[in-house]
Amino acid sequence: MEMLSCHLNRDTDLPLYEQLYIYIKNEITEGRLEYGSKLPSKRKLADFLNISQNTVETAYDQLIAEGYVESLPRKGYFVMASGDLEYVQAADVPPNHELHEEKQSTIRYNFHPSWVDTENFPFAQWRKYAKNTIDKQNHSLLLLGDAQGEFALRQEISNYLYHARGMQCSPEAIIVGAGVEVLLQQLLLLFNKDTIYGVEDPGYHLISRILKSFPNDVYPLEVDDEGIQVEPIEKANPDVVYVTPSHHFPYGTVLSVNRRTQLLNWAAEQESRYIIEDDYDSEFRYTGKSIPSLKSMDQAGKVIYLGSFSKSLIPSLRISYMVLPKPLLKRYKRELAFYHSSVSRIDQHILAQFMKEGDFERHLNRMRKIYRRKLEKISELVKPYEETVSIIGERSGLHIVLSVNNGMCEDELVQKATAAGIKVYPLSGYSLGKNYENPPKIILGFAGVPEEELPTAITNLLEVWVPVTPRNLSKTEQ
Amino acid sequence: MEMLSCHLNRDTDLPLYEQLYIYIKNEITEGRLEYGSKLPSKRKLADFLNISQNTVETAYDQLIAEGYVESLPRKGYFVMASGDLEYVQAADVPPNHELHEEKQSTIRYNFHPSWVDTENFPFAQWRKYAKNTIDKQNHSLLLLGDAQGEFALRQEISNYLYHARGMQCSPEAIIVGAGVEVLLQQLLLLFNKDTIYGVEDPGYHLISRILKSFPNDVYPLEVDDEGIQVEPIEKANPDVVYVTPSHHFPYGTVLSVNRRTQLLNWAAEQESRYIIEDDYDSEFRYTGKSIPSLKSMDQAGKVIYLGSFSKSLIPSLRISYMVLPKPLLKRYKRELAFYHSSVSRIDQHILAQFMKEGDFERHLNRMRKIYRRKLEKISELVKPYEETVSIIGERSGLHIVLSVNNGMCEDELVQKATAAGIKVYPLSGYSLGKNYENPPKIILGFAGVPEEELPTAITNLLEVWVPVTPRNLSKTEQ
Repeated sequence: MEMLSCHLNRDTDLPLYEQLYIYIKNEITEGRLEYGSKLPSKRKLADFLNISQNTVETAYDQLIAEGYVESLPRKGYFVMASGDLEYVQAADVPPNHELHEEKQSTIRYNFHPSWVDTENFPFAQWRKYAKNTIDKQNHSLLLLGDAQGEFALRQEISNYLYHARGMQCSPEAIIVGAGVEVLLQQLLLLFNKDTIYGVEDPGYHLISRILKSFPNDVYPLEVDDEGIQVEPIEKANPDVVYVTPSHHFPYGTVLSVNRRTQLLNWAAEQESRYIIEDDYDSEFRYTGKSIPSLKSMDQAGKVIYLGSFSKSLIPSLRISYMVLPKPLLKRYKRELAFYHSSVSRIDQHILAQFMKEGDFERHLNRMRKIYRRKLEKISELVKPYEETVSIIGERSGLHIVLSVNNGMCEDELVQKATAAGIKVYPLSGYSLGKNYENPPKIILGFAGVPEEELPTAITNLLEVWVPVTPRNLSKTEQ
Repeated sequence: MEMLSCHLNRDTDLPLYEQLYIYIKNEITEGRLEYGSKLPSKRKLADFLNISQNTVETAYDQLIAEGYVESLPRKGYFVMASGDLEYVQAADVPPNHELHEEKQSTIRYNFHPSWVDTENFPFAQWRKYAKNTIDKQNHSLLLLGDAQGEFALRQEISNYLYHARGMQCSPEAIIVGAGVEVLLQQLLLLFNKDTIYGVEDPGYHLISRILKSFPNDVYPLEVDDEGIQVEPIEKANPDVVYVTPSHHFPYGTVLSVNRRTQLLNWAAEQESRYIIEDDYDSEFRYTGKSIPSLKSMDQAGKVIYLGSFSKSLIPSLRISYMVLPKPLLKRYKRELAFYHSSVSRIDQHILAQFMKEGDFERHLNRMRKIYRRKLEKISELVKPYEETVSIIGERSGLHIVLSVNNGMCEDELVQKATAAGIKVYPLSGYSLGKNYENPPKIILGFAGVPEEELPTAITNLLEVWVPVTPRNLSKTEQ
């Protein structure tokens, strides 16, 4: 055993024990202190370096904790690691320019279908409930809560579903999660691994992509003006079908009552069959009553209901929920209840208060008027171009589909718009088989564009698609 | 075509159009209006019922929207649905008593390993940042953000990892998610479906359960006092190994530097091999420096680093993150970037501010002292019982393991404690193979029990396990 000739610097911020620890660690990793060799005793080393035994002990303890050194009772300290253990920096740091996307953009108007109106969000109310909730008296909310979500929130959701969607579902059947993606991932675990899924095509592409990232088969199912067709379902024979019955995404069709009955009957025929009803924007219907949910017609307990606050409130809140039929709920409680809730408890209580105090209802009523006005404004602006551009699905929701018959293909339509600083979304992006329709169709999420900017945005868009027509011209000349 | 003899009640809140709509819908679903039959024209029905044409139109439009009725141009309105379509309430509402668990509890002290100290959370600071963030000027935060998480937060995490964990990782390699479960579910999608996983046994049981809910094979891997053993890994030959190197859960062992090197070398041998490092509570080390992360030694880019704010801040916040090595990051960006972030953007910005302003560091320093005191108090209280009860892993983290050699089996230990109002957790619950150790071991998460309650809680616990011993007796008599 040699003494350790460590040079300690007392004029630095680095504690002496840490200098000693680093010195010994380097001696080991660089091979100068070999595996099995004995270190000086604490007392001897302390004397030699003129430091306290405590300092040596702290350094030795750290080396022991990290496995470099072992302490054998009544024998002393021994090196337990061999050389060539140098710490190196992780090799996976990509240079900034490689992966950090350029955020420069010349887009002035974005018609993204996931966007909502952000200017009329009740910040003051939300802030008030946040302030109430983030309080020492609620300190128990800091711990993990119910895996299905806070009971208070589920109760509010249950009330809402009863009054707004005609559904009687108990809070016990509701599972709250951080977005439809997270909920779907859990849901998929409740089905067998050879379950075959059917999705509307065109449809909500996220669902298809999630399903496709699992090893299951996914069948595209045709949609016409009554919604999803049931005969192809009977032929293709999937186990679980994903639908948007109240407002088909993207066409806006309502699944007809006949199709609903057929679909429910199809599902009732076999135990393994289920229907996933995504009721993503049913809050926004501008004429008449809201369309009843498929779930409210479900006698056989075959409908899994998916709801979300992404459209009705804000998408970045990441709060969605699903209502499970009894057999699936039992399976969930047996197999998946160990998953922790994926939503902050504080956020859940903020939302529960917001709903309980009537702010959610007020917000919906207010937004319904704002969105209706936006929609009317667009219809009005499109009207002079109606020979070329027609609107599909203008009764409800936060988006419409434009069918554009000007001789351009879908790509051209999108490119022309982008060049004019307007971002629109091609329908084929929402088709599993990338089907191109004729005439080509464009999805226009109108919710996120401020009301006062709509005239310029829509007029600019239409002008790049439809150069001045005789009819327009004559109007201008009048 | 008959006229519709609908009785309209003008003395109710229900709008006339809705009464008419309900009447016609019932006529259809109850079979009195048959499929294909023609409805009266709007004008005729309006005259007959002495209401405005507008009212009839609204009712008809709703029936059309729901698919009960079809409007044929120049022909009129026709019933499109057949009878027996009655709406029924969903059948899946379980009576409250059946599924709603009894929440009655006689537990006074809960030593759950996931609990943290909730009394010293900086509510005022958090509320301040929440107030700053929930503001109209941040209205763009309401829309969906970066799928990997807000850049501002990832930058703070990257800084933290550099200073606290010796890791150089760029914000681009970090993915923020709503808890380790959500992140793991994404991560698993990046591996092949026949990937075999290895987990520490005993270990963090949640991981094993998540892995087991996927169809992949999961091998339990033995742990000794240097951490996970590498030879069995080489034999069992899994592809991906899950470890807690800085502080093994639940034993508290630090993976020795030799084992670290072996493990990293094992992973480097094959492209498909990866190590998942769960660094769940490395913030809380009460003597010496923190243990370097395995990731900081990772030359070959084989370590996936998992971090969380569940221990360092609060578990109910649901913010965790992972750092992906380059090949996995590329795969993530290619295949999974369409998943939306699972964490509220507002929450991400609150946390980013909390970190940026130094509050996170202050909180950690404060909590380190509080937890250290709690740990010291427990050691002190256990000391008189040391012949029967010994503490394993007392250097760090928020839990310890008690090895209890009083002749009772694990179940008895837990039951006796529960009967005394004290909830403790058996080690076998954290073993994939439900292995029972001898002497039996109990996990004690001490973070959530207030400091002033520890003496009573621990003394009560020890007294039900170890009836008064001669030594205690002699002390009492003194």
